[in-house]
Amino acid sequence: MGSDYPPSLRCGLPGLILSLETAFILIFWFCFSNESGSTPKDLDIYPAFQDVNVVVILGFGFLLAFLKRYGFSSTGFYLLIAALGVQWAVLVEGFLFSSSAGKIKISLHSILKGSISVTAVLISAGALLGKANPIQLIWMAMVEVAAFSTSRWINVKFLKVEEHTSLMHVHIFGTYFGLAVSWWLYHSSLSERVEKERSNLISDLFSMLGALFVWMFWPSFNSVLIVDLMERRNAICNTYYAIAVSAVAAFALSSLSRRNGKIRMTYLNLVLKIHDTCGVHYMFGLPGLLGAIVNVILFIIIKWASLSSLGYLALIEVGSFMLTTAIGLGTGFITGFILTFKLWKTLPASKYFDDQAYWEFPHLASRF
Amino acid sequence: MGSDYPPSLRCGLPGLILSLETAFILIFWFCFSNESGSTPKDLDIYPAFQDVNVVVILGFGFLLAFLKRYGFSSTGFYLLIAALGVQWAVLVEGFLFSSSAGKIKISLHSILKGSISVTAVLISAGALLGKANPIQLIWMAMVEVAAFSTSRWINVKFLKVEEHTSLMHVHIFGTYFGLAVSWWLYHSSLSERVEKERSNLISDLFSMLGALFVWMFWPSFNSVLIVDLMERRNAICNTYYAIAVSAVAAFALSSLSRRNGKIRMTYLNLVLKIHDTCGVHYMFGLPGLLGAIVNVILFIIIKWASLSSLGYLALIEVGSFMLTTAIGLGTGFITGFILTFKLWKTLPASKYFDDQAYWEFPHLASRF
Amino acid sequence: MGSDYPPSLRCGLPGLILSLETAFILIFWFCFSNESGSTPKDLDIYPAFQDVNVVVILGFGFLLAFLKRYGFSSTGFYLLIAALGVQWAVLVEGFLFSSSAGKIKISLHSILKGSISVTAVLISAGALLGKANPIQLIWMAMVEVAAFSTSRWINVKFLKVEEHTSLMHVHIFGTYFGLAVSWWLYHSSLSERVEKERSNLISDLFSMLGALFVWMFWPSFNSVLIVDLMERRNAICNTYYAIAVSAVAAFALSSLSRRNGKIRMTYLNLVLKIHDTCGVHYMFGLPGLLGAIVNVILFIIIKWASLSSLGYLALIEVGSFMLTTAIGLGTGFITGFILTFKLWKTLPASKYFDDQAYWEFPHLASRF
Repeated sequence: MGSDYPPSLRCGLPGLILSLETAFILIFWFCFSNESGSTPKDLDIYPAFQDVNVVVILGFGFLLAFLKRYGFSSTGFYLLIAALGVQWAVLVEGFLFSSSAGKIKISLHSILKGSISVTAVLISAGALLGKANPIQLIWMAMVEVAAFSTSRWINVKFLKVEEHTSLMHVHIFGTYFGLAVSWWLYHSSLSERVEKERSNLISDLFSMLGALFVWMFWPSFNSVLIVDLMERRNAICNTYYAIAVSAVAAFALSSLSRRNGKIRMTYLNLVLKIHDTCGVHYMFGLPGLLGAIVNVILFIIIKWASLSSLGYLALIEVGSFMLTTAIGLGTGFITGFILTFKLWKTLPASKYFDDQAYWEFPHLASRF
Repeated sequence: MGSDYPPSLRCGLPGLILSLETAFILIFWFCFSNESGSTPKDLDIYPAFQDVNVVVILGFGFLLAFLKRYGFSSTGFYLLIAALGVQWAVLVEGFLFSSSAGKIKISLHSILKGSISVTAVLISAGALLGKANPIQLIWMAMVEVAAFSTSRWINVKFLKVEEHTSLMHVHIFGTYFGLAVSWWLYHSSLSERVEKERSNLISDLFSMLGALFVWMFWPSFNSVLIVDLMERRNAICNTYYAIAVSAVAAFALSSLSRRNGKIRMTYLNLVLKIHDTCGVHYMFGLPGLLGAIVNVILFIIIKWASLSSLGYLALIEVGSFMLTTAIGLGTGFITGFILTFKLWKTLPASKYFDDQAYWEFPHLASRF
Repeated sequence: MGSDYPPSLRCGLPGLILSLETAFILIFWFCFSNESGSTPKDLDIYPAFQDVNVVVILGFGFLLAFLKRYGFSSTGFYLLIAALGVQWAVLVEGFLFSSSAGKIKISLHSILKGSISVTAVLISAGALLGKANPIQLIWMAMVEVAAFSTSRWINVKFLKVEEHTSLMHVHIFGTYFGLAVSWWLYHSSLSERVEKERSNLISDLFSMLGALFVWMFWPSFNSVLIVDLMERRNAICNTYYAIAVSAVAAFALSSLSRRNGKIRMTYLNLVLKIHDTCGVHYMFGLPGLLGAIVNVILFIIIKWASLSSLGYLALIEVGSFMLTTAIGLGTGFITGFILTFKLWKTLPASKYFDDQAYWEFPHLASRF
């Protein structure tokens, strides 16, 4: 089991990746249309599309590079599951949302929606950081993307939620799915891990870099899919103000919560006996919950004038939000249970949080 | 005074931040219009708006991450004063420039102008890097944004300078304000600081990263507010060429100035007995001065044909520039004097340039 | 020869840089038009123009920062040759492609084409990383830009290849030029270099950062010059899919090729007895070759309907590609031979891969 664990990653990982990729290419070849589904308007969203890409590919990967022995894995595996997940998301969403009209077309919009959907996986993976091997992460990505798309489809189809709103549930879904999976991978005897779980100055700076990228381009993430230009502008301005105020508040609260008034870089760690490596619950889940509640309250206030349909619409909002949380928790719980099977070559707890389990190091002597 | 200095940052910092933020939110709530001031044209500047954000949030923060023990503080405090400063700048500029027409509207343009104004604070903070605590930095940001906006208002209102031009004075203003403040915080017995003030390989690479971001997106910074499309294009091309030539020249001069012909990464350090940590005088002040002088000369040459109004217009240009420098130096001098009061829990010189004064380190054993 | 080698870099490097820059400025002054060649459409490409800039300035520089003692040189020299090379490329292309119509105009398009052309130099420099001094790199940049522009001019003028297609040959040209130059600078007795040539954790993370920037903005790089909007959209979507699939495949193959199934960050190292520091042959050359071959095959399949002109057109495609490779190899071979002259103060092999040959280190004691 020594230092070259996991011994049979060789057969499992490339086989899994190559067969998934081959299946994707074949499905695209046979089920998707040759002609592009792009309209001339498509290019207008290209700059914001790139901003979302920066958030997904670079921001999250480096945001989670703060574990001092796990920088390679967090950036590398995030790239892998993002690249696989986007393709899978485009496939699943193509079948669920637009399969009726003959062959499915690919456009910048469908790739963009895929990128936003895959954010759910990246958020969930944050709760599992260092505790799941790449095979587990890939399977989780496949299940979670399918579950989130199905949840979105139910929301759009039956609750008549707008597609943009349903995509913004990605934070709630990702958080609760991830926490439910994390519950199964939690080991109580993890005292020896504590050292590895620490960050260091440099990994924290990289993490800061990733966080700033996520932070800066969040207005694009929030606004890019809104069709109405006036609403899109409002979404940009509001998001900008919201993140500015929250950055300021984070400084104040972090300083306030310590006896000596110093500021900490990371978030709280042990949540509800669920081992949530990077505190996704605080970062995405609670804001999502609060946001949804505030949204319902504002919605009621604004729609007060048109009393007739009020109760019904508020119910839909609450229902849509509860449904998403429930599907996230439920599918996450099942997925987490399945991921504990021996089949996936699960990591022993002593190997958690260590790049060496997966990466070749030509530079062991000169570690940091 | 030991290692857990500053002991009472706990009461001061979060209290200051939270009361400022509350005041901002209340003022926005009561004095600003609900409806967005955005026009359909607004979204056109969104990509360049994001570029300016990258310069302000990420570029400057990492550019100044070169002090090997001060990386957290430079990136963290810059984010804090940028997030607070932009809100304050939008408020101040709203009242100064558009308070006449009833309630003030917020648009992408006003946030963008706020971001550019706050650059003055970031430049000034560069001269104080490691010598001021966050409470001092926040107060300086408040005073400086108000002073710069007032300076701009005088320029636009009385000297009829174009608003875009007045914003480009941000470099001169920031430099001289910062140097004047730095004059007060300078301590001559700083021999023990020299070790901490050094950079190391990694912090220099992070600094290089920040510098490249500032460098790359400078054309956006310079051009985004120009209304005329042809002039905007020219500004982009000219800025691009200017920074390409200056990068080349910097290499040549750096290599030329050393006996062994090697190239240095940082700039000159001790200026006029003012301790200017990151050489802002060379980086922003002198180029600003030179730029302004060249601008006046070119202006005279170009306008030679229309002799009648020449003397008057050149006078305005020179006057506008002198005024900005004078206001910067004057308000900076007063601010620096006030910042030396005991009230602000000023740092003893032995604590300069050290992250430990402000940040919790879970990883002290594994420092770099 | 000691540690302060190269002793006479002081006279050579700044003199070379300053005289080149002066010459450029004079040529621009006398031969280029004052009025901008920009059209109103020009600003539309500005966001994609910035993406290409990020690839060229930041992406490549950090991508090649993986040598643990050579991070300064790779980011610094890349900035230098990019800044000089773009100006030279705009000059050369101005004379070759548009000198007929009086004075040459500069536009965002011409700077963009210059940036793409200079990528050839950055790719070639990747094969020489750590083995060439800045004087050699600058001369190589001058020769290579001229050679690539001439190759493009022949392609466009005589083979009637579209300008966009001819620019996409930049990968093939850069690779084979660089390998031919590298052949001359290869020393077989390099055993002592092996230690310096290693990367470490942090330099690999910086390299990952650069790679992700190149990766993310590659769709912009590939599509920005396509005039037809529909084709541009297709190019964006296709490139996006191509890089997603290749990232996935790279993980699978890297894991498959190691006995223990671990993943490596760098590529293969010793190619054809040519010492190719960063594996440009695998990274750019082979994909370029494969791409060209696939392109010809697809081209034949698609054009099968219009049989008459088929043979001729396929021949042109193959010919254009062969010609570019041949010019790249030929001019590279000659350039490499010239660069071995004593005149250029070539590095002794013991000084390869070391920042200290060129940079002042204020922080030697605290190396990593």
